[in-house]
Amino acid sequence: MANIIQPLQHFTKFESLNLGNELIEKALLYKSNPALDKAKGAGKRIGCIFLNPSLRTRISTQLAAMNLGMEPIVLNMDKEGWALEMQDGAVMNRGTVEHIKDAAAVLGSYFDILAIRAFPSLTNKEEDTSDFVFSQFVKYSGVPVVSLESATRHPLQSLADQITIRENWSGKKKPKVVLTWGPHIKSIPHAVANSFAEWTIGMDHELTITHPAGYELDEQFTNGATIEYNQSKALEDADFVYVKNWSSFNDYGKIICTDASWMLTDKHLQHAENAKVMHCLPVRRNLELSDEILDGKRSLVQMQAKNRIFAAQAVISHLLEQL
Amino acid sequence: MANIIQPLQHFTKFESLNLGNELIEKALLYKSNPALDKAKGAGKRIGCIFLNPSLRTRISTQLAAMNLGMEPIVLNMDKEGWALEMQDGAVMNRGTVEHIKDAAAVLGSYFDILAIRAFPSLTNKEEDTSDFVFSQFVKYSGVPVVSLESATRHPLQSLADQITIRENWSGKKKPKVVLTWGPHIKSIPHAVANSFAEWTIGMDHELTITHPAGYELDEQFTNGATIEYNQSKALEDADFVYVKNWSSFNDYGKIICTDASWMLTDKHLQHAENAKVMHCLPVRRNLELSDEILDGKRSLVQMQAKNRIFAAQAVISHLLEQL
Amino acid sequence: MANIIQPLQHFTKFESLNLGNELIEKALLYKSNPALDKAKGAGKRIGCIFLNPSLRTRISTQLAAMNLGMEPIVLNMDKEGWALEMQDGAVMNRGTVEHIKDAAAVLGSYFDILAIRAFPSLTNKEEDTSDFVFSQFVKYSGVPVVSLESATRHPLQSLADQITIRENWSGKKKPKVVLTWGPHIKSIPHAVANSFAEWTIGMDHELTITHPAGYELDEQFTNGATIEYNQSKALEDADFVYVKNWSSFNDYGKIICTDASWMLTDKHLQHAENAKVMHCLPVRRNLELSDEILDGKRSLVQMQAKNRIFAAQAVISHLLEQL
Repeated sequence: MANIIQPLQHFTKFESLNLGNELIEKALLYKSNPALDKAKGAGKRIGCIFLNPSLRTRISTQLAAMNLGMEPIVLNMDKEGWALEMQDGAVMNRGTVEHIKDAAAVLGSYFDILAIRAFPSLTNKEEDTSDFVFSQFVKYSGVPVVSLESATRHPLQSLADQITIRENWSGKKKPKVVLTWGPHIKSIPHAVANSFAEWTIGMDHELTITHPAGYELDEQFTNGATIEYNQSKALEDADFVYVKNWSSFNDYGKIICTDASWMLTDKHLQHAENAKVMHCLPVRRNLELSDEILDGKRSLVQMQAKNRIFAAQAVISHLLEQL
Repeated sequence: MANIIQPLQHFTKFESLNLGNELIEKALLYKSNPALDKAKGAGKRIGCIFLNPSLRTRISTQLAAMNLGMEPIVLNMDKEGWALEMQDGAVMNRGTVEHIKDAAAVLGSYFDILAIRAFPSLTNKEEDTSDFVFSQFVKYSGVPVVSLESATRHPLQSLADQITIRENWSGKKKPKVVLTWGPHIKSIPHAVANSFAEWTIGMDHELTITHPAGYELDEQFTNGATIEYNQSKALEDADFVYVKNWSSFNDYGKIICTDASWMLTDKHLQHAENAKVMHCLPVRRNLELSDEILDGKRSLVQMQAKNRIFAAQAVISHLLEQL
Repeated sequence: MANIIQPLQHFTKFESLNLGNELIEKALLYKSNPALDKAKGAGKRIGCIFLNPSLRTRISTQLAAMNLGMEPIVLNMDKEGWALEMQDGAVMNRGTVEHIKDAAAVLGSYFDILAIRAFPSLTNKEEDTSDFVFSQFVKYSGVPVVSLESATRHPLQSLADQITIRENWSGKKKPKVVLTWGPHIKSIPHAVANSFAEWTIGMDHELTITHPAGYELDEQFTNGATIEYNQSKALEDADFVYVKNWSSFNDYGKIICTDASWMLTDKHLQHAENAKVMHCLPVRRNLELSDEILDGKRSLVQMQAKNRIFAAQAVISHLLEQL
């Protein structure tokens, strides 16, 4: 592989257009030849630490590491381990069994790279928005950390999404990308939506975000996007429509709308003839997104899922070059 | 290895005497030299997806794949993932998080071969007898699928059983094989019994099935067997006795007899001097089968368990040849 | 590697000063070159069977095996499998699904080496002190068994501890080692304390044990140590202080003291200027041991955790030589 353009200590968020392009190109190279760098990670270990459930992320990250000749080890911290204490200085005379500063340091001493999934509570806005749990791992582990979704971001998903857009766009103009809120019955994190906005704007696409009033995302992620409360208007002439539910950010973690008319159907796309539809999966069919779209030709969701492997492979490869 | 006699898209059930013989011979070759085809699966991945608990199946399938140089990844869908929606067209506004058609397609795109365990509900006869959950994986994954026990069958167990019979039979006549129901305290699936009958008849052995009235198995699996309600009579001159509990098929999933006299002991085998005793494990000692038999010379249960590795290795090897 | 000095059937406890020295030297060699014996375990499999949660033990044992070229498989028996029956002759008509004699024999037939974690109940003293559950695995598996912590001992931890002492002691005299009880809110096993005493005495160090009255350990592990109920006096001029909670052995499994003054702080070490502090982790901060010590220069806890890899590697390497 070519020399790296931009060094990277951890992979937790969008960094730059240059790095984004480098990772997308690297991922597409791996997609055409997964075993290209099979010797690169020989003798290196990645620890994949899950504080929450996972399917795509769990498997695609292991496959990516194996494609690079690394030996992945998965730890379900919540089920195979125990509850971690997060507060500095805590007197640990209650339910938590080990302080994150001890666990993270040990894990960092066991692995060359750590990959961590730590969802938000959706009840403590300050802790969540500071990515507190995830940041503690970064702070105390002493090795490069890859986010497998933190409280605020899901950058491997977003990289896979950008790879997918790259593969599906040959136009000369910037594609019009629309991020539309979809209904859900549970309180859902903001990470995928934040991250998709951050990367789409960062990769210099035109982004419109549409959602019911009260669902405004944290502005640090949406600066540069057009916010359009009228979904029909937002979807006009869209090239890519990303569907995602999230809970309210202002009224933190709350569900303030369940209006089923926001669910994307073919009819919603009558003025966006060529629009491709994206979703990070898992998707609740006929609640967030209709069967007709998911099973139709517009859908890119399976391609996004497949690209998760190569997104992870590009990122891990990049980090390996700096070890 | 020799060229395959009969191509095989998925491994879900008994296919033919020819294929049965081919797989048994291949398995015995691997048993004498597990590393014989160590390079065959290099760079190939098998995903082992468990919707239910497992010990032998979980480990033997991984070992089989590793013997062939493959990289297995295990996913406990029920614990590490989430609940899957099975109904087509469902509005997913309740407990299920992902539709099987999406999950199966993603898993199929991640692995070269999938292996799936999906037990029956024992409450919905129609769904169970159509092997609904398992079939959805087959339908949507797009890759070869190996059954690690479905609602209706457990073909890797049955192949291991037939390997074990082959190893323990040198007589010129067909062996007399008896499948006898044994007591249990829980409602137990029919898969092992169905599958054992299907394979034993298919491999052209003489099969007698004995059980209390009301425990008749689905006839599609027992056609060609003798049904004998008198256990003593059934066991006379048996060469192999397979002990297994199952719940009622007609009064679906119900326990209609717990008569302890059905538990196989040495005394039951007084007119079957040379009978070997088989069970798929896990076995409830002194409920299904007595200590004296399990710890005595008649027992083949440990050999059956060991042969699970080579049964899986033969099947995966066969599927690898067609990739 | 040099030829082995002392053959070893299983690794469950301290065996001899000679073997202890051999394992420590082997471990330090591996620490300086983890890949030294990368081909030694090729084609060999270790099964790591957990009946209880684990972080360090789970990961360090896998890494050790991988360093030796082995393929580890982890089984969470409690979560991925089912409840095991332990009593010989039991009529299994209740909650247990498989008898340990069957499960252990199968696991033994699947793996070249087994590694088992089986905590005590802390409610049945006789069963616990006979290491009943662990011993059943040893008895029925038929292969070398490595303890990943049994009811009475945690020998891989103790070997890692002795490696750590070796690395941190260059004095000509025997180091003064103090094992001090620390407060806790839960009923904690004796295994780490027993094993640390057994190994420290066995390795010919000077050991003082200090604890509140009523917390006397089983004498078979402490013969040769000085028991000193006055913690201040015990700590005077200590070179190494090992902090650990355990429940009462005499009033079996009970918590009979929660006196916070027993928690080790810098002040406790005013007459032990150079004392290094050890703990096996997980540690409850500010309950067992203060932040100031854990985050200060005295702490060896991270080195102990890192040495778990090389302790396991030395032990597995030793067992591989005898296969």
